[in-house]
Amino acid sequence: MKFIRDSLHGNLKVDEFEVRLIDTPQIQRLRRIKQLGFTYLVYPGANHTRFEHSIGAMHLASKLANHLGLDEHQKKMVRIGAVLHDAGHGPFSHVSERVIPYSHEELTSRLVKESLLGDILQEAFDLKEITQIIRGEGSLGQIISGDLDVDRMDYLLRDSYYTGVAYGVIDVERLIYNMVLDEHLMLKRKGVQAAESMLLARYFMYPSVYQHHTTRIINSMFRRCLLKLMEMELVNPEKIYLYDDADIISAARAQEGYAQELITRLDNRSIYKTVYSLKLDEVQEPHRLFDIPPGKIRELEQELSEDLGVGEEYVIIDIPEYPDFQEMSTLVAINGDRKKLRDISSIVKALNVARFDHADLCIYLPKEYSDKADNFPFNNYIPLEI
Amino acid sequence: MKFIRDSLHGNLKVDEFEVRLIDTPQIQRLRRIKQLGFTYLVYPGANHTRFEHSIGAMHLASKLANHLGLDEHQKKMVRIGAVLHDAGHGPFSHVSERVIPYSHEELTSRLVKESLLGDILQEAFDLKEITQIIRGEGSLGQIISGDLDVDRMDYLLRDSYYTGVAYGVIDVERLIYNMVLDEHLMLKRKGVQAAESMLLARYFMYPSVYQHHTTRIINSMFRRCLLKLMEMELVNPEKIYLYDDADIISAARAQEGYAQELITRLDNRSIYKTVYSLKLDEVQEPHRLFDIPPGKIRELEQELSEDLGVGEEYVIIDIPEYPDFQEMSTLVAINGDRKKLRDISSIVKALNVARFDHADLCIYLPKEYSDKADNFPFNNYIPLEI
Amino acid sequence: MKFIRDSLHGNLKVDEFEVRLIDTPQIQRLRRIKQLGFTYLVYPGANHTRFEHSIGAMHLASKLANHLGLDEHQKKMVRIGAVLHDAGHGPFSHVSERVIPYSHEELTSRLVKESLLGDILQEAFDLKEITQIIRGEGSLGQIISGDLDVDRMDYLLRDSYYTGVAYGVIDVERLIYNMVLDEHLMLKRKGVQAAESMLLARYFMYPSVYQHHTTRIINSMFRRCLLKLMEMELVNPEKIYLYDDADIISAARAQEGYAQELITRLDNRSIYKTVYSLKLDEVQEPHRLFDIPPGKIRELEQELSEDLGVGEEYVIIDIPEYPDFQEMSTLVAINGDRKKLRDISSIVKALNVARFDHADLCIYLPKEYSDKADNFPFNNYIPLEI
Amino acid sequence: MKFIRDSLHGNLKVDEFEVRLIDTPQIQRLRRIKQLGFTYLVYPGANHTRFEHSIGAMHLASKLANHLGLDEHQKKMVRIGAVLHDAGHGPFSHVSERVIPYSHEELTSRLVKESLLGDILQEAFDLKEITQIIRGEGSLGQIISGDLDVDRMDYLLRDSYYTGVAYGVIDVERLIYNMVLDEHLMLKRKGVQAAESMLLARYFMYPSVYQHHTTRIINSMFRRCLLKLMEMELVNPEKIYLYDDADIISAARAQEGYAQELITRLDNRSIYKTVYSLKLDEVQEPHRLFDIPPGKIRELEQELSEDLGVGEEYVIIDIPEYPDFQEMSTLVAINGDRKKLRDISSIVKALNVARFDHADLCIYLPKEYSDKADNFPFNNYIPLEI
Repeated sequence: MKFIRDSLHGNLKVDEFEVRLIDTPQIQRLRRIKQLGFTYLVYPGANHTRFEHSIGAMHLASKLANHLGLDEHQKKMVRIGAVLHDAGHGPFSHVSERVIPYSHEELTSRLVKESLLGDILQEAFDLKEITQIIRGEGSLGQIISGDLDVDRMDYLLRDSYYTGVAYGVIDVERLIYNMVLDEHLMLKRKGVQAAESMLLARYFMYPSVYQHHTTRIINSMFRRCLLKLMEMELVNPEKIYLYDDADIISAARAQEGYAQELITRLDNRSIYKTVYSLKLDEVQEPHRLFDIPPGKIRELEQELSEDLGVGEEYVIIDIPEYPDFQEMSTLVAINGDRKKLRDISSIVKALNVARFDHADLCIYLPKEYSDKADNFPFNNYIPLEI
Repeated sequence: MKFIRDSLHGNLKVDEFEVRLIDTPQIQRLRRIKQLGFTYLVYPGANHTRFEHSIGAMHLASKLANHLGLDEHQKKMVRIGAVLHDAGHGPFSHVSERVIPYSHEELTSRLVKESLLGDILQEAFDLKEITQIIRGEGSLGQIISGDLDVDRMDYLLRDSYYTGVAYGVIDVERLIYNMVLDEHLMLKRKGVQAAESMLLARYFMYPSVYQHHTTRIINSMFRRCLLKLMEMELVNPEKIYLYDDADIISAARAQEGYAQELITRLDNRSIYKTVYSLKLDEVQEPHRLFDIPPGKIRELEQELSEDLGVGEEYVIIDIPEYPDFQEMSTLVAINGDRKKLRDISSIVKALNVARFDHADLCIYLPKEYSDKADNFPFNNYIPLEI
Repeated sequence: MKFIRDSLHGNLKVDEFEVRLIDTPQIQRLRRIKQLGFTYLVYPGANHTRFEHSIGAMHLASKLANHLGLDEHQKKMVRIGAVLHDAGHGPFSHVSERVIPYSHEELTSRLVKESLLGDILQEAFDLKEITQIIRGEGSLGQIISGDLDVDRMDYLLRDSYYTGVAYGVIDVERLIYNMVLDEHLMLKRKGVQAAESMLLARYFMYPSVYQHHTTRIINSMFRRCLLKLMEMELVNPEKIYLYDDADIISAARAQEGYAQELITRLDNRSIYKTVYSLKLDEVQEPHRLFDIPPGKIRELEQELSEDLGVGEEYVIIDIPEYPDFQEMSTLVAINGDRKKLRDISSIVKALNVARFDHADLCIYLPKEYSDKADNFPFNNYIPLEI
Repeated sequence: MKFIRDSLHGNLKVDEFEVRLIDTPQIQRLRRIKQLGFTYLVYPGANHTRFEHSIGAMHLASKLANHLGLDEHQKKMVRIGAVLHDAGHGPFSHVSERVIPYSHEELTSRLVKESLLGDILQEAFDLKEITQIIRGEGSLGQIISGDLDVDRMDYLLRDSYYTGVAYGVIDVERLIYNMVLDEHLMLKRKGVQAAESMLLARYFMYPSVYQHHTTRIINSMFRRCLLKLMEMELVNPEKIYLYDDADIISAARAQEGYAQELITRLDNRSIYKTVYSLKLDEVQEPHRLFDIPPGKIRELEQELSEDLGVGEEYVIIDIPEYPDFQEMSTLVAINGDRKKLRDISSIVKALNVARFDHADLCIYLPKEYSDKADNFPFNNYIPLEI
């Protein structure tokens, strides 16, 4: 038995087998991956890592597993699933994920298979079964990654703790104690309010933290930098789970050219300006925004750069992240029946619309070129009916 | 006016002039310097940076300056002093400081003089005067760096918040509201208990955090790595305030040899073992321990490596940090008289002795060589009477 | 200068004049009035009082007044307004308010006029002007009692702190820093989210705390007890602001009969059972529920008691509190224009409907009679179309 | 299974048997007994009750029992022991205890025997065995009431939470995880620091909270009032565990005379003044102070009242509480040996002396008579060599 001191959840017990997994280079690497990418440039306390989040998720997985009455082997699997669920994340977590052709779940599976992790797991588990849980598949997998998973509970609490934005302070116990496992992980009727509250916590965290305007610019700048490194084959997207944050930063610093320029700007917080913003509610079919292929965006950027008369690399068009709130379809057990959360909660129903309130397509330019954008007819370039 | 959201102190106001200073590359660099070096390998939440600490110290400096009734110009100087007081820190803060031939206060002065910071400061202040405050000199300087300074108040609170070790949770308001400035920054009688409590907070943080056994090993490994890079002239100690944590890490990773080996061990948390420990209370003149010159230590390490039959680089002798508690001589104003804190508080008097309780000289070896140390007569090598 | 230590907001400064007001028997009485009535029988920590809430509101009033740039005299008025705003509350706060023929604002004005408070206030203020502020009238009054007042900010935070229900943890600073005073106290556009979040905090606190099912039963029992004491002229509703919680409790204990029986049940947590519940969404014109006059309810209770064959005193029909969310019409300043919050926020719009989700008319009986209610046609007695 | 929401420890599970005990009038009464007596007149948030403390102690007892590896029956006893350990407390807890001829432990035993509690306990336990645990006897009893008991852990945390004085924030987990049960409840070597820290927490809480100067005056006034009620046989000290706070308050209010005067002063915070203070370090044999019999004090008060020319009831001589720190003799298991904490910790050794630093004998008079005390030779009346 060993203890890990978590700043949120206190002293957390880990057994010997878990220590062996945690002590692999693959899990230790997560100590060097920031949970929220470059958000620390907006909220200076946001330096927390995927490592502490993974340990925290393990702790909540235990709590939920205990409440659900799982057997010892199932509990063990669920704990391990939580520790490993983010092992495939690339540097700066979700920031890099958007330019990598694989999801972090996909990469986690691959990493487990080809590394020491798989060998250790095989000693205690059926590798296929545990991999499914890590990926969030099956009913046990839903504990790790489902509509109401421990991943989300932990990151909301943790991101609030480190950013100082209180919106994510959710009532984890009320949520956990109102869940049942009956094929699906479901809510009891009494838990509806706790679930509403968690959904709203996430909703409020979007514009304040996850999609904070400045964060979006910074992350876009970094992604552009990373793409450059990938184009130059200095970073291999197939093995993105082998790099840590410092690797990418030093690769960019070492490369004389545009990647270096971008990393220097980030270091010095010399951030691009927003020269155009198109709010989704001004658009006729807003959902189509999320379907525009990256190649098309790239083309538009080039067109714009020519017409604006600035270097090709300086124009960034930024599509916001799709505000995904799958919890809306969480099942609620009501008198033997099962209903979707959004069908019984008027608040959740409203969120379904409101979640697009803060979404906008933006165009960024370096500060020194931003006056070129004055009176420029950006609307003509946007492939959406306004 | 701008706000910076601090996870500890909330929304902190900064004025335009302060924003200009904060937005320099010199202060932005502090976002990339971990406050507690490699402590995150022991307490996974300890990823906080010198940047947030500097902003937090500025906030407390304001509070104290207001309480003391300083005028607007003095308040401004004190705030700026707090923001800049750590600007000269090298990567991983105090960890690197021990192998650099200058204190971070010395380096801060130098950096201010030769960088943009000096130019900006000169617009509003007498450069000599403000530099003294930044260095903690004069009565206003004592607010920044003295016996009961805002630096210490902030770091105790902050290190507790991020490590999850509650010992550092001190009562800052009680302390501040019981201070007076009369040539010296002094305590009122009613503040004695708050000061005792802050001293004890630091005392308890030593073995749990600052001089935690594992942290000491890790930091020793890193210092050895940094020395190697300095010997190879890959890092310039004269300009250590130009590097951030990632610079040193990537320099070590790039260098094939011992520096790379050490950084890989740190990455993978493959930590040296303690093969010998000499507690100070077993030594006849314990204070002499802190006077052993670094060169002497280096010689002993070489001798040991030969006699143990392990590579010269693998033996680390670690002298603990001197447990400095200058607050003990804080002046307390009692009926027109001034007494030293340690002369009126039996608790503080006891601390004067107790602070050495946890100090020991240690010798570390890589795990794979640690059996060579069995029954080895380390005592014979130690230049202290036992 | 004196300090009051508040468990939420820390050390709060009060000046000499404020101390004189706070030290009157009228304000000291608030130390003996529970903020949330009998909620401590559901959440054991909810023993906090109107006194600490009033001091906390004063602190937030200062913060808001500073942000709005009020002059010294205005600030002083606003602080005093906050301290006094609840002085007229009767025992157990809002619980008694529902059976008293005056609002607590009305009673506060009366108390100020006829007590020492008025005399002291007159030394520094125009009595009419300050009374308006205390009552929440005029633009300065809106700081104390308006759509986005400091009263509400403090009680949400405080009730969360003491009940342990996190829903009320709101971001007070973000709210305050996004308010403007331009005839009306209004929100800036950037503050919309903070306001949405505060509204939702209140919305979630309703079923969990303020209108928690058990709390509603307990409060109904107490009101019945208090009515009895008023009927017997043992308590004078005209002077309800002279009593504290203990006065009513001991009056009830001393009176042999139904009042004593009820207070004994409350003491022993022997709580009535809900034998009937009519959800508002099953009713055709739900708003009419809140218009049923108390006399009509009393008649129905008597009818029911006869037909159920239980003592007249044992039937309680409980109409829920009207879920008032005036903040929905808070003005938001948008490009020189003013819009209502509910017109620009889809979340707030949804709340307008959702707030009735948890409301129901209930009928309670002592446990020992509750089987008499089996299959009883309560619906026939309810004066609402179902 | 039921949950009780504790504002400190979160959602706490209680089983059916425990609910039955908790729902007795004897345990429900604790909801109406303030944990810290009249401390709420100094720290307005200190309204917490013996009830929540008892539930909190039960929670910590579980944690400790789990860590110690107790069997299910033992765990159950320890939990029940914690819930009941304070059942015998009189109104305002320790404040009344000093004028009652029995300790609260003694009264708890008596209450258990003669009430419903005993009947319920007998269904599941040997009554003698469980009573011993409740009283803190035997090795299991030490968990409830010993040198390092859960009672103390809970009250330090809880009193800090409600007063807002951070000194009591201790590291309960570090403490619990470093305890062993081997006939005695003992500390492991690694837990010494956590124990030192808890001792210091208590030490700092004494002058700030438990023996705060104003609190001492208020409590003395209340004790005088209670004594009066006992003399008049309006309160029966033999059955003090049948009264709650409101009972005593209303008895005093109803009695025209000195008891009423005192309760009115307390209500209005019209507090006696200290006219004389004798610090223990000015006395030759300070320990003798605690041996002066109450009768002797009473005599001195009468003498003083005559010589000062004030009514007999107005003079209060207040001996401080003996600063008991039994934890100093806590056993620490070191390499098979057992040592006392104070023998291995220089901090604890220092506390042994320092704990008397803040102790003084005081004399109080109503404000309106306090000038009679000017230049009065109080020293001559004190039965101690100075």
